[in-house]
Order: sequence, then C-alpha cells, then structure tokens
Amino acid sequence: MARINHVAIVGGTHGDEYSGIHLVEKWQKTPALIARDSFTCEALLANPKAHQANQRYIDADLNRQFLRADLADIHLGNYEQSRAKALANYLGPKDAPRCDVIIDLHNTTSNMGPTLVLLKSSPFTTQLGAYVSQIMPSATILFQDGDPSVEHCFLCDLATHGVIIEVGPQPQSLLRHDILAQMEALTLHVLDFTHFYNKNALPALPKSYDAFRYTQTLTLPTADGKLLGTVHPHVQDNDFKELKTGDPLFSLFDGCTVFWEGQSTYPHFINEAAYYDKQLAMSLADKIRVEVLVD
Amino acid sequence: MARINHVAIVGGTHGDEYSGIHLVEKWQKTPALIARDSFTCEALLANPKAHQANQRYIDADLNRQFLRADLADIHLGNYEQSRAKALANYLGPKDAPRCDVIIDLHNTTSNMGPTLVLLKSSPFTTQLGAYVSQIMPSATILFQDGDPSVEHCFLCDLATHGVIIEVGPQPQSLLRHDILAQMEALTLHVLDFTHFYNKNALPALPKSYDAFRYTQTLTLPTADGKLLGTVHPHVQDNDFKELKTGDPLFSLFDGCTVFWEGQSTYPHFINEAAYYDKQLAMSLADKIRVEVLVD
Repeated sequence: MARINHVAIVGGTHGDEYSGIHLVEKWQKTPALIARDSFTCEALLANPKAHQANQRYIDADLNRQFLRADLADIHLGNYEQSRAKALANYLGPKDAPRCDVIIDLHNTTSNMGPTLVLLKSSPFTTQLGAYVSQIMPSATILFQDGDPSVEHCFLCDLATHGVIIEVGPQPQSLLRHDILAQMEALTLHVLDFTHFYNKNALPALPKSYDAFRYTQTLTLPTADGKLLGTVHPHVQDNDFKELKTGDPLFSLFDGCTVFWEGQSTYPHFINEAAYYDKQLAMSLADKIRVEVLVD
Repeated sequence: MARINHVAIVGGTHGDEYSGIHLVEKWQKTPALIARDSFTCEALLANPKAHQANQRYIDADLNRQFLRADLADIHLGNYEQSRAKALANYLGPKDAPRCDVIIDLHNTTSNMGPTLVLLKSSPFTTQLGAYVSQIMPSATILFQDGDPSVEHCFLCDLATHGVIIEVGPQPQSLLRHDILAQMEALTLHVLDFTHFYNKNALPALPKSYDAFRYTQTLTLPTADGKLLGTVHPHVQDNDFKELKTGDPLFSLFDGCTVFWEGQSTYPHFINEAAYYDKQLAMSLADKIRVEVLVD
C-alpha cells in the first residue's frame, strides 16, 4: 500500500461557492485543525480573483482546465487557464504529483446533501467510500470512474487520488450554517480516514456498500437555443432518488410533459444554477454496489 | 374611488431573477393573457443589460434609484441611474404617473413563499391584500408603509399604487417550476382584483385580515468588516415565523450563539443571497391586523 504523504484541501475553485472558501480561510489561520501525524496537509484558495469578483469564474470555469494537453498549451492564456498552469506546477505535476490527495470543496444549489465524489476506483478510494458511508450515513458516495481511459479535466485530478466534496443546497454567494457544518465534518472524515489508512489502523469496514456511478448529463428541452420548459416538480429537489422509465422529467411552458424514456436512473445536480447557462438539466447515475479493494 | 386605467407588469428589475423575466417575455408574446376589459396592461423588462450579463445589476441596484432627487440629478449617470430616468419618463413621472399600478416581479433565495408587498396603505391596496389572502391563502401580505413620510426608492413607487411580488426560494439565474407557477398565479390575481375593483364587482371581502409590516433590517455579526458568523439554524428558512425574545439569532464561527434581545418579531429575507455582500442578515416585520379601507 502506498502511504499518503501530502494532502491539499482546496476551496474557491468556484469563487461564489462560499463554504469551502470559509473553511480554507479558517484552516489557513489554524492549521492544527487539519494536522494529522502521518501526513502533511495544506489549505489553498484556488481562484482568488473570481472570489474577489464574487463570481464563479472570471474568463472560464477553472475546474475544466486540467487536461494534460491544455496545461501544456501556452496559447490557452486567459485567467483561469493561467491559474490552472500555476496550480498544476504547485500541486502536481499531473503525472508525478506532489499531492497524493487533493480534496476540492464545492457547493451546489441543487439538493445533493453532502456528496463525496471519487474520480477513480482504487483501494484508497473504495475504502474511503466505505469509511464515510459508515461514519456519516447522510453522505452520498458518487464514483466518476465510468471510463478509466477518459482523462478528467478537474483540478483534483492533479493528485494521485482526486476527491471532490459537494454540499448543497446553498444559493451562490452566501453561507448557510447547516451546509458549512456538513462540509467541515465530511472533510475532517476524509483526513481521519487518510491517517488511519496510513497507520493501518482503520476500523472494520464493510466488504461492499451502496454508491452511485455517473453515467451522463441531460440538457434542458430547447428549440433554436431557447428554453422550452423546466425540470418537472416530480424530479426537482429529488437528487439521488430513483427516476423510473415513464416518470415525468420536464414540464414544458406549453403545458406538455416530457417523460423519461430511459432505464431506471438516479438524477443529481438537478436544476443546478451553475450549469443553467449551458442549459444542462441534471446529471444521471447508476446505483452500484462497490466492492472494497484491498492493497 | 379612482378607477385604474393603466397597469404595467415589470420583470427583470434584477437581471438574475428569472421568474419575472420569463413571465414578461411570455406576456409580451401573448398580451391576451394579461388583458382585462376595464384597463390597459403592458409587460416590460426593466434591466435588459443586467439580464444579458446574467447579473443582478451592472453598476448599481436598479431598484434603489427612484427617489425624486436622484431621478432629477443628471450627474447620477451610471447604467442603472440612467435606465431609472428612462423608466421614470416612460412609466411615471413620479408625481403624475401614466401607470396607476406597477407590479414589479422579484425572486428571493430566501424561503419567503409567494409574498405581496404593498408600499402604501389605501383603499386599493388594503382591499387587494384582503382579496389575495382570501383567494390564495399561501400568500403572505407585507406592508412597507411604516413611515408614510419616507419616500420609497423602488421602481414601482413611480405608480400611484406600488406592488412588489416576491417569490422564493429560488437560486439566482434559473427557473423552478413551482416558483414560476406561484408568481404567475399571484400576478393574475392582482389583475383580476383590479378589474373587479374597477367594475365595483369585488366578491365579499373580510373587514380585516392578518398581514405583516416591515420594521427594520438586521446586519450579520461582523468585526472590522469581516463576517463573524451565520444566521442560526433556528431562524434559517423560517421566513415570517415568529422570533421571540431570547431565541437564537446568529451562530458565531467561534461556537458562541447570539440571541435576539428585541421584542417578538417576524424575520423575512432571511440570509438572502442578494443582500449578502451588504452583510444584511434579514428584515424584520410586525404581525398586524389590517383594517380594509373603503373608498
């Protein structure tokens, strides 16, 4: 088993997602709160200029700028593309990173609760998912490892183990007490797990557990770029609840309903404000049983 | 009784409050939906540039630019100050307005449900409140007429009767089906009422009814401009629920709780995203019994 030597906790990858920004500022002031004996840990604000502007980003979504080819392309030079290169140098580089783990903290306006997103399936991540499901049953575990040959464009993919924490619902540009507490608890659970993992001192974990695996993203109904309707009330706020074949999916402004014709699935990021300008309606996931991998 | 001759329905006074913008675009396309026999009615987008930018405003909050002195000051020349002057000419002028009624459509990220805000107390507005409480019991009636000598700076104060419709919770920059339906229903009730009022054909109204009256705005706890805490979970999402003396009000980051030391009151606009940069925590209101005034 490969020991974890260094962890980075990143907030403010999107400048209007305040919970992670608040926690990073808190932990920069009081590093003892994130210190664990068996590894070093730092907290970092990823997109300070966007946060200052109180926007998700200045020129482009920072969390889509971390493909190897884009990081190597000096002609991609807007603010976030430049900041991505600086972050890759500081936290990475992608193929031999200084950070074994990056925990990237995000908020959603959709009703996702505390969600732990894991980019790859490995002994570390499958055991982490098992630990979190056990110690924080309100958390959802979401694997984004459907096609391991496809490279992730996310910031936390700089590290060997990419971890995203998404907590919502929270409107952009403010702090809710409940959401902040959930994000703090979930992040500290990841640190505790990492320490126990390093020390070979994990509590007994289940051999398998329920989780989700991202499959695809649905767009809102449009014609000539104009929106034709909204997410149906049957789906709105029901993140990670089952959507069955034939269930209502979209409610059109003309009064018609669009039904889901695919197989049973689990929507999340439902009617997410950050994705609305791209006319995205929701992401879909399969419910899966994760077998815990051992080193 | 003064007959209502012209009504303007205004959306997009804030460019990221999508429900009103959608309804205005819908009604501009199909004016028959807002046509009533006894008055003329138009639908208008107030801040098109902010909506295009997907922001609340470009330079300044449009809905604070309608004081007589500011409208008369040519040196106040940023985008919203200029747009306010154009709107005042078109819908007003303030002391002899073309519009008898302006209905200004807004969203909140706070949990206010459908709220009808009335700027002044008059036979028209007190009867409108009675009509809406009766036909739409889920709606809250909020009077903002505490000190009649204080001039309002709001867009709808251009008209003889200023009406604001606030509906939430909805994150900024997206559409929720439920919020849209509530806003549409409440706006059409105001139009129906106006028609019945003109025709002297109102249904029997109660002589008095429960409502709220705005009293003051509370700021978040800060020191040297830095936030010290959040709205307490006891208050969060409980818009128009009673806050009693001694109830928890703010939860500080150091673990302490700030309690409400004032008299029993009714918070609203609780932890509203649009007010967060001004470090406003919530508005307060008294519960009142409104006597219906007759002409």
